[in-house]
Amino acid sequence: MDSKSYLALHGNGIHHVNINGTLYPTKMKSRRQRWEVKPSEMANNTLNPIRAIVDGMKLTPNPDKPMIALSIGDPTVFGNLPADDAVLQAMKDAIDSQKYNGYAPSVGYLKSRQAVANFYSCPEAPIEAEDVILTSGCSQAIDLAISVLCNPGDNILVPCPGFSLYKTLAVSMGIEVKLYNLLPEKSWEVDLQHMESLIDERTSCLIVTNPSNPCGSVFSKEHLQEILKVASRHCVPILADEIYSDMVSCSSPSVASLSSDVPILSCGGLAKRWLVPGWRMGWILIHDRNDIFGSQIRQGLVKLSQRILGACSIVQGALESILNNTPQSFYSETISFLKSNSEICFSELSTVPGLNPVMPSGAMYIMVGIDTDHFPDFKNDVDFTERLVTEQSVFCLPASAFEYANFFRIVVTVPEEMMLEACARIREFCQRYYRPRSCDSNDLDQ
Amino acid sequence: MDSKSYLALHGNGIHHVNINGTLYPTKMKSRRQRWEVKPSEMANNTLNPIRAIVDGMKLTPNPDKPMIALSIGDPTVFGNLPADDAVLQAMKDAIDSQKYNGYAPSVGYLKSRQAVANFYSCPEAPIEAEDVILTSGCSQAIDLAISVLCNPGDNILVPCPGFSLYKTLAVSMGIEVKLYNLLPEKSWEVDLQHMESLIDERTSCLIVTNPSNPCGSVFSKEHLQEILKVASRHCVPILADEIYSDMVSCSSPSVASLSSDVPILSCGGLAKRWLVPGWRMGWILIHDRNDIFGSQIRQGLVKLSQRILGACSIVQGALESILNNTPQSFYSETISFLKSNSEICFSELSTVPGLNPVMPSGAMYIMVGIDTDHFPDFKNDVDFTERLVTEQSVFCLPASAFEYANFFRIVVTVPEEMMLEACARIREFCQRYYRPRSCDSNDLDQ
Repeated sequence: MDSKSYLALHGNGIHHVNINGTLYPTKMKSRRQRWEVKPSEMANNTLNPIRAIVDGMKLTPNPDKPMIALSIGDPTVFGNLPADDAVLQAMKDAIDSQKYNGYAPSVGYLKSRQAVANFYSCPEAPIEAEDVILTSGCSQAIDLAISVLCNPGDNILVPCPGFSLYKTLAVSMGIEVKLYNLLPEKSWEVDLQHMESLIDERTSCLIVTNPSNPCGSVFSKEHLQEILKVASRHCVPILADEIYSDMVSCSSPSVASLSSDVPILSCGGLAKRWLVPGWRMGWILIHDRNDIFGSQIRQGLVKLSQRILGACSIVQGALESILNNTPQSFYSETISFLKSNSEICFSELSTVPGLNPVMPSGAMYIMVGIDTDHFPDFKNDVDFTERLVTEQSVFCLPASAFEYANFFRIVVTVPEEMMLEACARIREFCQRYYRPRSCDSNDLDQ
Repeated sequence: MDSKSYLALHGNGIHHVNINGTLYPTKMKSRRQRWEVKPSEMANNTLNPIRAIVDGMKLTPNPDKPMIALSIGDPTVFGNLPADDAVLQAMKDAIDSQKYNGYAPSVGYLKSRQAVANFYSCPEAPIEAEDVILTSGCSQAIDLAISVLCNPGDNILVPCPGFSLYKTLAVSMGIEVKLYNLLPEKSWEVDLQHMESLIDERTSCLIVTNPSNPCGSVFSKEHLQEILKVASRHCVPILADEIYSDMVSCSSPSVASLSSDVPILSCGGLAKRWLVPGWRMGWILIHDRNDIFGSQIRQGLVKLSQRILGACSIVQGALESILNNTPQSFYSETISFLKSNSEICFSELSTVPGLNPVMPSGAMYIMVGIDTDHFPDFKNDVDFTERLVTEQSVFCLPASAFEYANFFRIVVTVPEEMMLEACARIREFCQRYYRPRSCDSNDLDQ
């Protein structure tokens, strides 16, 4: 064989090579003389706001009281919310079949995509298998959606308070994050005027989280329509984070079911509703009835999905059965448990002077406002929640972790008796530190 | 509660907001007037060389002959290489335990990382749990390793022929790929002088694939030491893609076990040796005995792992049992099957005029050179393999897919009778098109 033939395709300017000789460029290039291996800019710019806050806190519980962590957005940690038997059986069947050991297509098995399409398709927002991309958890769904829509220098609109991952991903890719306000006095509806004021020509994506983490709020049909109007007016596509969809105690349409023109990438997965966040089974539903994304965005998503492939093939293989065989009672029991715990938490904390819980309608969180004027001993929500650990061994995530001040988030998946005990301890803590308004006392002094 | 308190942490210049009013900047920003949603540069730059080649081929098999695909690097597709029962049982136990439904740490369960460390640690290259990061398949391991070491504008050295993912990932991140030659006449050893000639001050990583996809070659201890010398001389860290480690029919030390100074990120996983590529269980082993990576690279990897999290928690939960309970006979039977099939393929094709197979020592591939002077009917390896499908219904991947000309790759995981049949058809095809050297006939004409 002709030795030249080895080289025909090498390209990339490597033309000095002679396989049988040693003919290389003699010009000595500048090279490193000593070891100096630094992490990339991307690694340095990958920041997790929750870690930044929590890692800086002194979380030493009171040794006399067992710790109650109301901070972790994982419904499985207390063991009171197991996965359904049908789900476990579907997984074991997939394993025993030995049909799902090999590589799945990068966008997922067609059969599994079809199952997701069937599960979520509705007359107002019909989807088919080709509109579904399976991903390694909802996080990868969000990653792919941001990656395909945004270039460095673009900006995205993100709810505040909101899930920290959007910012973590965007900043690591050189994408600017603009925070739009949610209004606690309106059950965390979007401040539409504020949101609209942030849009400029580099706004490539509007993220809508509904139901909301950390707020537990659920938007009404009318409010979603208002949000869609803003997106439509400025031609901004929506990334709908709907990982908590159907985990609600009220009516809750999807954004896509109300959209007449705005194209939507809806991100979801098994994590929350099926109570298996560790399994990393997520998806993107592509809603684009006016063909605005067109084939280019679809092909972009396919190409990006080939970088590291997606979800575990066993979970993909089990997906059709999981979606079709999980009994309705499983969903409704989870929801009624979350609703009951939310009501307990809300009613307990509503009567604690200085606290202002906002009643949730979905997801698995409740946000509690701290009337800081009444708690002069604490600098802010971080200080407040840190001291709550020190004295009462109750850990709630300060809303600073969601870039929001003077609230804390409670996860309502804990067993009821733990929720009651936690509320009692929070009450005791607040009663100890509650002071009359400083302005009132000032008035008295004057 | 004071409405101002909602705003204290909003930051990012959003200071015009008055929650009770509508005081927003009145200056109208330039905004989009019509829909125009284009995929990002990153999506456009995510290119898969294999797809680029294969999607352009006319792959219409001969209807009279059943198709034999020797192209797919997935050992599970023919059903002759099932996963071991111990592996399946470990998975089912993990599911039944309900202990692995929740989020694992972004770098993986400590117990599972410990199990990987125990499995791979050796006196020459000791590692502990903290040196292991679990990932969603070896692809994510490679992605994280490149992401943490390289900035846009840097370059990485990649073997040619080599696995296409390195280029797919690097180019999508704006990292330049420099291809260094492997030498078929030396069983695909590295052309060390060529490799060294490519290093410059922006070279942030040297990728070493051993055993090799697509070559099936395995480097000797001495050759690995030579590679390490080059890396050491120029202070370039190594990304060792060792996903086929221990799938060899010869002695095969890891790069790390021979390194005295060069820091190494070794990427591996369950995919190949345990025959479950779809399960997406990969890992990075951090070898850094001279503390050159230091805490910064480790922290960078941890931060990057938090972007989308890693492997499915069920597979992680099963990992310790998979590594400890898979019987030695499973590994040795797989290796002897692959060795036997490789020998059959090599000995069959060695006697086909115009073909030059290179005997492999590991992985699950054999590369076959096409003496193009003897096949004037075909423009190149793509044309050759395309026509082999059309006439003989045998599909081998043209080495152009690995940026290498005039070879094709055969996957040796097919059942033995299929391998024999495929070789017979390749022989028939070559015999039909083989011509004496054109230069010989020219000589006769003169």
